[in-house]
Amino acid sequence: MAANVLPVTPPQRILLGPGPSDVPPRILSALASPTIGHLDPQYLRIMDEARAMIREVFSTSNEMTMATSGTGSAGMEMCVVNLIEPGDEMIVCVNGVFGSRMRDVAQRCGATVHSIEADWGRIVEPSAVAAALADHPNTKVLGIVHAETSTGAHQPLVEISQLVHDAGALFLVDAVTSMGGVELLVDAWRIDAVYSGTQKCLSCPPGLSPVSFSPAALERMDGRKTKVQSWYLDVSMLRAYWSEERVYHHTAPINMTYALHEALRIVLEEGLEARIVRHTVNHEALRAGLEAMGLSYIPERSLTTLNAVHVPDGVDEMAVRKRLLNEFGIEIGAGLGPFKGKAWRIGLMGHSSTKRNVLLVLAALESLLLDQGADLKPGEALRAASGVY
Amino acid sequence: MAANVLPVTPPQRILLGPGPSDVPPRILSALASPTIGHLDPQYLRIMDEARAMIREVFSTSNEMTMATSGTGSAGMEMCVVNLIEPGDEMIVCVNGVFGSRMRDVAQRCGATVHSIEADWGRIVEPSAVAAALADHPNTKVLGIVHAETSTGAHQPLVEISQLVHDAGALFLVDAVTSMGGVELLVDAWRIDAVYSGTQKCLSCPPGLSPVSFSPAALERMDGRKTKVQSWYLDVSMLRAYWSEERVYHHTAPINMTYALHEALRIVLEEGLEARIVRHTVNHEALRAGLEAMGLSYIPERSLTTLNAVHVPDGVDEMAVRKRLLNEFGIEIGAGLGPFKGKAWRIGLMGHSSTKRNVLLVLAALESLLLDQGADLKPGEALRAASGVY
Repeated sequence: MAANVLPVTPPQRILLGPGPSDVPPRILSALASPTIGHLDPQYLRIMDEARAMIREVFSTSNEMTMATSGTGSAGMEMCVVNLIEPGDEMIVCVNGVFGSRMRDVAQRCGATVHSIEADWGRIVEPSAVAAALADHPNTKVLGIVHAETSTGAHQPLVEISQLVHDAGALFLVDAVTSMGGVELLVDAWRIDAVYSGTQKCLSCPPGLSPVSFSPAALERMDGRKTKVQSWYLDVSMLRAYWSEERVYHHTAPINMTYALHEALRIVLEEGLEARIVRHTVNHEALRAGLEAMGLSYIPERSLTTLNAVHVPDGVDEMAVRKRLLNEFGIEIGAGLGPFKGKAWRIGLMGHSSTKRNVLLVLAALESLLLDQGADLKPGEALRAASGVY
Repeated sequence: MAANVLPVTPPQRILLGPGPSDVPPRILSALASPTIGHLDPQYLRIMDEARAMIREVFSTSNEMTMATSGTGSAGMEMCVVNLIEPGDEMIVCVNGVFGSRMRDVAQRCGATVHSIEADWGRIVEPSAVAAALADHPNTKVLGIVHAETSTGAHQPLVEISQLVHDAGALFLVDAVTSMGGVELLVDAWRIDAVYSGTQKCLSCPPGLSPVSFSPAALERMDGRKTKVQSWYLDVSMLRAYWSEERVYHHTAPINMTYALHEALRIVLEEGLEARIVRHTVNHEALRAGLEAMGLSYIPERSLTTLNAVHVPDGVDEMAVRKRLLNEFGIEIGAGLGPFKGKAWRIGLMGHSSTKRNVLLVLAALESLLLDQGADLKPGEALRAASGVY
């Protein structure tokens, strides 16, 4: 058996899908630094630095900020299971895959879940939230997705946060595809629990989930009558490891923490504002190019980090994606749910959000669409995109 | 902020604690290979190869074998939450930290847990298992730790497996510190659910947990009346991603999978039998040396991968560990639970299990114990250890 298995030799892709994004060499080098123990003083220093930088990128001073030892979905589950006890009422806003997932997670931990549904691609309106909170005055937590990776919808949060707090509930936000790429002000927006992933706008390999909890969220946890149903994700125990006490909980993913540390350093070197501007400009250029090719956006209010567009009639979406991968080494994403077979999702996240990639993916897409007989004016997309810069 | 944080520069330790063990350069190189998408055909091939090699190292043909996106404790939780429904009876054997943890995990998912307690350092006797099964004839699952990392106890499994199956229950085994270092025959020993960690005898960085489920375990899951309480660890959904269907569940930890792939290649290159012999010989040499220094073993039946010894009276255990780390760059582990401040745990796992490390740690320990005024005959430990080779 062993004799048959060759070493891994993954190709050098250009990752323009819904994540992972391209990982810069500095981060891969950090990842490959020597493994040390999870209680080694040198590792504890790296953890503390990573935590301080996570706080900065989340724009929060929340003491309980850390990286969960799992992907973004583990961060989602951590937030829900620590805030919810069986029988608690929770409102979940559902307008795509990740809202649906949050509802499922909440139901599995015994919450009585009330959904606010919006069409996929639409955002959730404050009026709908106000109505749901009025209907369910015992709501303990309201959960919403800031950046819905399945549709590209960019959800405004400020007004909804106000409504949630006025109703005395906690405000839980999925920031997987926004952290480090889109404005996200955890303290200013009064977010009580937030989680993200490393493989999106932080351009780190997947495997960790930065999370942060407000003092009000911790107070809720401290007042629990039942144990958190997940041992692995129990914040009350993880707090003791991430505090001065350093109480062993589970072995931390050492090397992934190195990589996250370097990814956060890169974000802060560039500066959050400059980074948001870069994502905005590259998105606008891509959008100008895609629209010049006749591709229309799905969401009413698009993220700058993810561009979900309708596949034109008569175009074989899978064939185009396969050729992009095989002939150009470019990965883009397919549609999910109602958009399966009908959408492309083009990510411009973190290190992948560059002028070079914008022009390249437009040129490649144009050539493949022309091959499929699409009615395009050659060069129009690149001209439109270049006009933005 | 960013300007203040320097890049990570972890030192080159010699990891002889309870894990992580030393990670060889080949594995660190694989870890730093370019990140690609989790649905990229090239990644799917790597997953399939990793899965085939996990099966081989577990000595199983179980179809449902995979790497969980979390550390060994996530693997533990996955096994328990998928096999247990609220109200199910489960027997957990508790003779150290990890048995206690399994009991806690089982209680959190609503199991009615019956414990078989043994003193820390002792193994669990088949007679105690037979008695517990007789007392609790509705037991659905019996969980036990093969390699108790907190005490170094090496639990025999064959006879207990027979009792468990005779009683119609499923047999769940923690193999975190045994997989790839100690004999572990999942099929031959009729283990229904098993989990391990990457950072022990596989010498891969921490972050993944190889798991495997027997057809009987899958049948139990298929017959569940309730959803698995953890979305993240729900095997029914993960099976669809690890199968030909490739249904997206969560973003896999791409680079960690590269590292695990290389770690498994190294295990199979050496050969399981040769690897077990190497761990045995190095353990015997270390044991001879430690005992020649007057250090006695804690467990009645020691693992070859972890050596837990009593700290001699009058010796400051923490001072010795700190000097080992600071002066020699050697990490060893402290005692846990009743052995806190009273034990050392010296791991010889995977890449760390070498003659060089055995002689080095003996020499270093001897010099530090002499410094503390211990009554030792200098050179005796090295002579005893060398005699084994």
